[in-house]
Amino acid sequence: MAKISFEFPDGSVKEFDQGVTTEDIAKSISISLAKKSVAGKIDGKMVEIDLPLEKGGKIEIVTKDTEDGLKVLRQTASQLLKAALADQFNNIQFGESTSDEDGFFVDTDKRDSQVSADELPQVEERINKMVSDNVKIERKVLSLEDALKQVDGDPYQAKLVNELAEDGQVVFYQIGDYLGLGEGVVLPEAKAVKEYKLLSVAGAYWEGKSSNPMLQRIFATAFYKKADLEEDLKRRQEAKERDHRVIGNKLDLFFVDPKVGAGLAYWMPNGATIRRVVERYIIDKELANGYQHVITPVLMNLDAYKTSGHWQHYREDMFPPMDMGDGEELELRPMNCPSHIQIFKHHIRSYRELPMRIAELGMMHRYEKSGALSGLQRVREMTLNDGHTFLRLDQIQDEFKKVLGLMVEVYKDFDIKNYHFRLSYRDPKNTEKYFDDEEMWSKSQSMLKGAMDDLGLDYVEAEGEAAFYGPKLDVQTYTAMGNEETLSTIQLDFMLPERFDLHYVGEDGEEHRPVMMHRGLVSTMERFIAYLIEVYKGAFPTWLAPKQVKVIPVSMEKYGDYAKEVNSKLAALGIRTSVDDRNEKMGYLIRDAQTNKIPYTIVVGESEMNSNQVSVRKYGEQDSESLSLDDFIKEIQEDISNYSREK
Amino acid sequence: MAKISFEFPDGSVKEFDQGVTTEDIAKSISISLAKKSVAGKIDGKMVEIDLPLEKGGKIEIVTKDTEDGLKVLRQTASQLLKAALADQFNNIQFGESTSDEDGFFVDTDKRDSQVSADELPQVEERINKMVSDNVKIERKVLSLEDALKQVDGDPYQAKLVNELAEDGQVVFYQIGDYLGLGEGVVLPEAKAVKEYKLLSVAGAYWEGKSSNPMLQRIFATAFYKKADLEEDLKRRQEAKERDHRVIGNKLDLFFVDPKVGAGLAYWMPNGATIRRVVERYIIDKELANGYQHVITPVLMNLDAYKTSGHWQHYREDMFPPMDMGDGEELELRPMNCPSHIQIFKHHIRSYRELPMRIAELGMMHRYEKSGALSGLQRVREMTLNDGHTFLRLDQIQDEFKKVLGLMVEVYKDFDIKNYHFRLSYRDPKNTEKYFDDEEMWSKSQSMLKGAMDDLGLDYVEAEGEAAFYGPKLDVQTYTAMGNEETLSTIQLDFMLPERFDLHYVGEDGEEHRPVMMHRGLVSTMERFIAYLIEVYKGAFPTWLAPKQVKVIPVSMEKYGDYAKEVNSKLAALGIRTSVDDRNEKMGYLIRDAQTNKIPYTIVVGESEMNSNQVSVRKYGEQDSESLSLDDFIKEIQEDISNYSREK
Repeated sequence: MAKISFEFPDGSVKEFDQGVTTEDIAKSISISLAKKSVAGKIDGKMVEIDLPLEKGGKIEIVTKDTEDGLKVLRQTASQLLKAALADQFNNIQFGESTSDEDGFFVDTDKRDSQVSADELPQVEERINKMVSDNVKIERKVLSLEDALKQVDGDPYQAKLVNELAEDGQVVFYQIGDYLGLGEGVVLPEAKAVKEYKLLSVAGAYWEGKSSNPMLQRIFATAFYKKADLEEDLKRRQEAKERDHRVIGNKLDLFFVDPKVGAGLAYWMPNGATIRRVVERYIIDKELANGYQHVITPVLMNLDAYKTSGHWQHYREDMFPPMDMGDGEELELRPMNCPSHIQIFKHHIRSYRELPMRIAELGMMHRYEKSGALSGLQRVREMTLNDGHTFLRLDQIQDEFKKVLGLMVEVYKDFDIKNYHFRLSYRDPKNTEKYFDDEEMWSKSQSMLKGAMDDLGLDYVEAEGEAAFYGPKLDVQTYTAMGNEETLSTIQLDFMLPERFDLHYVGEDGEEHRPVMMHRGLVSTMERFIAYLIEVYKGAFPTWLAPKQVKVIPVSMEKYGDYAKEVNSKLAALGIRTSVDDRNEKMGYLIRDAQTNKIPYTIVVGESEMNSNQVSVRKYGEQDSESLSLDDFIKEIQEDISNYSREK
Repeated sequence: MAKISFEFPDGSVKEFDQGVTTEDIAKSISISLAKKSVAGKIDGKMVEIDLPLEKGGKIEIVTKDTEDGLKVLRQTASQLLKAALADQFNNIQFGESTSDEDGFFVDTDKRDSQVSADELPQVEERINKMVSDNVKIERKVLSLEDALKQVDGDPYQAKLVNELAEDGQVVFYQIGDYLGLGEGVVLPEAKAVKEYKLLSVAGAYWEGKSSNPMLQRIFATAFYKKADLEEDLKRRQEAKERDHRVIGNKLDLFFVDPKVGAGLAYWMPNGATIRRVVERYIIDKELANGYQHVITPVLMNLDAYKTSGHWQHYREDMFPPMDMGDGEELELRPMNCPSHIQIFKHHIRSYRELPMRIAELGMMHRYEKSGALSGLQRVREMTLNDGHTFLRLDQIQDEFKKVLGLMVEVYKDFDIKNYHFRLSYRDPKNTEKYFDDEEMWSKSQSMLKGAMDDLGLDYVEAEGEAAFYGPKLDVQTYTAMGNEETLSTIQLDFMLPERFDLHYVGEDGEEHRPVMMHRGLVSTMERFIAYLIEVYKGAFPTWLAPKQVKVIPVSMEKYGDYAKEVNSKLAALGIRTSVDDRNEKMGYLIRDAQTNKIPYTIVVGESEMNSNQVSVRKYGEQDSESLSLDDFIKEIQEDISNYSREK
């Protein structure tokens, strides 16, 4: 028999008989290795553990405890899922199946109807049966012609078959009666897929294009160990409880309805209250810190975005321009910089005015793909806490420190702790890719770094991550779903002042070019409030809570007047309060106030009325405390004025 | 000689010789009448005072003291102006000339350049010469053919000749060498035009269409009496001083630049401050009065405006829809009603929730013609103080009273007094033109009237002025330019609840249709603040003033620290204050604070510093008063919390 030879990762080489499997090779090393191995990787290409190998090469044994190993399990589970679905539903068609570190999914089209979440338990039963019967999964290689015949009538599969064909051949797997297209290496037996879970169903466009049919995507996950699955399901549950979309719906904060406009948020009274408090806080903070707030139009002549370069480089993220007749084309602005430049240019500016800090809660529009939209986190209409400072090169370090100081103050007020700084420089090996001004780059980068060091802040440095037009600092954080988000940013810009020909009159009476600093303390109202919802899990600190106090009379008839009196006194102080006058049991009303995460629930009855007291229960606490109305007012006012700061 | 007879307004009939002039006829009545008369009106058609009359008819003698009489003078002046311009500029072409109650204008095209305001004095000199020479103005009747030859090479005049020709004949007037197209009856001698004034020059499109060439319009006015002209010029000056565009520019409140977008306002820091104070005031007022504030998108699926009927009836005032792909068309909303309907429809509503008051400072876009745009008063992007209340028919009267009460409170806070109420009903003779629900109309109209009477408010009733969809109340006022504006409105709407199929669950457990009430307390932020600028002539009451206090140290070197200390104490209380640290004379700095209409100018020197006092000068007053800083703080805080209310 012919011999073939394999080179192992440690560089050693061994010879085997032609037709040897990865499993045999693993066994030749150790039984324990063989037990853990789930696939082979020959010259970088994954192969089934039981595939007879015809040629040698560089070999890796893929084990359960690796990312690749987990992928093999999930590809196997995905194949079983398709087999179960094909068994359960006549004529079902399959779009793409994908496995990754988050789990796996299969796209389906039942044609006459859609797979619903209710049907998943039945599908699971079928999979469980295959697992307990330990059904074999056999690899079959079909010619392209035979493969296309096999998937005849399913346009999605036909397209996938063509894409996956290699040298005119396509891999299928036979599972009982089901012969299905392979979309990645699998294990030979169903019993491996013991610890799996079908999670949910959601619509997804074929190939991710909204002009294509909408398929039903079945989300699932699988692990080798029961404990891993359990931990993962727990993590998912926690993320769901923290998910701003779920909480936003429960607390009636906002909604998005694609029927009236995809990615366009409607802020219900509760959500609008939070936003109003945040907006006023930010504006007042900025005013107190030397910013001049302006209000500029959401529309601008398209020419301005041609001058800025947005139209050339950013067009696909912009809304379509509107032809206004008379040759005027108006554009919904994708950012506020050109608007603030108009403010700067409206007068001749003197060096005495610099740094000139222009700020706005500026509404902008960006054409995000419909598939990318998500609650308040990814929207098409957004209001940015924006600011543009016009300054001299030598003012950068001081101004940068001031912005950072302000940022950190704001984070403290919102009790935000889970963030890190990233300083982005240009790529020193490719300086020709960046705005051409050696002095500006070197000075400004060292000033940013110097400021961070002066303030004693930790940060990572990222060479080559700067914008084309200047270096920047980003403050990064994570959403409940684990996505990295930019919370705040400070960007230097040498280009726009050039493009819009900005200048100020210096002390020397000559015209000079200013530098621009773009900065956002808390990004957009949409994204920031989505983030806050997740940080607080909906239990907003008192100053932000849409409803701060709920007053519940033990009996509306007897103590209703006193309840109303307490309520009016609080309302007159600007406290967001209401009386719950529903004819329901006390316990129900108190629970309802807790469900709505209202910071203070006040109960008033005979003894409270007679002593001008209130019985106060704070959100999340089991016990109530009786205190005089005046003391309660003092307490809640202190709570409000303390923002979300840690006590 | 043939006789012709005339019937006078009093019914008497007199005979005259054929060829008699209106002047002769006037003289036959009285010399004093003849002195006053400037034209005749035969069978309703104006004729020159010296035109020989060939036929009799009903006659009126037009005298100087009538509107028609003034028009004759201005038409004469306009003809002299054209003659003077033709003399001064070779090849000048003339668009339309018009005379009305506000004065007269002539549109011009110098072709190579434009008439500028600097050139007007020279033009006036030429007119003055004609007047002192008492040049004759001779009527010439040309055939259409000859007339077109006469204006050959001037396309504007050629078009006007064709329009003005009657029975193939066109009236021209000969003034010295100038033979110009007549555009209305004139006086026979130049000396009548003694009291006139050329006012200004501004661009105006030929025939008012922005696709046509831009001409230069010369505005002017003329009167018979010197006193009348002087009074008119004074009134114009006052209006100019009150004009929000002039003040807005002087106080650096806002600007509009057609190059970046016609009708799109940029609010400079000063203007944005006023707007922010107004917005917070209105929102807090509405919240305290049971309104729920929401924030909804400026974009909506076009379908919603098809459902509402706006697209069918209102399309030319709307912005062009944007094609988003996927068959989605988005529209910049022209009003907020459909957005608030989404909020209402988002949950099943119970009768317990009615009246449900949804409010928003809602940004909207309307496509106003570029010629109609004016400062902040007529813009294309605006933010409306909007509110929609969903209620039962029997709740209308109470709710209407509440809104009215709130409105009057708001007017008091802004010290607005110059307004009147107009109640608009449907036309009882054409009920088929209106939304078809007899009961709703009769009940609601009588409820509105009842409420006005209950509150003892004066109002006018306007039958046939209601909207198609329901009766309404408007609060009307006047701008500096004398235009009538709607300050506030309350409109009932029976139609939208029907079109959007709105309902609530009644006490009976059944579904019922609510009525909608649209209401705006202070119209749009743009229009309201334009109005306030004019009401206050830029001297904003302290609570609204962009800058409330200016602190001026007698010497920056010696008292700068104390000035800064005073300033910080005030700023910490939220007072908008700054130190004027410029190296200028005290008198100059104080005058500058007055020019900027800052309510309080504080001067600090040796004695103030030693006694912890401030020397305070209020805007518009000549004297200052020394008082302790604490007393000043008390005073200004009281002033701010009193809004603009009359003391």
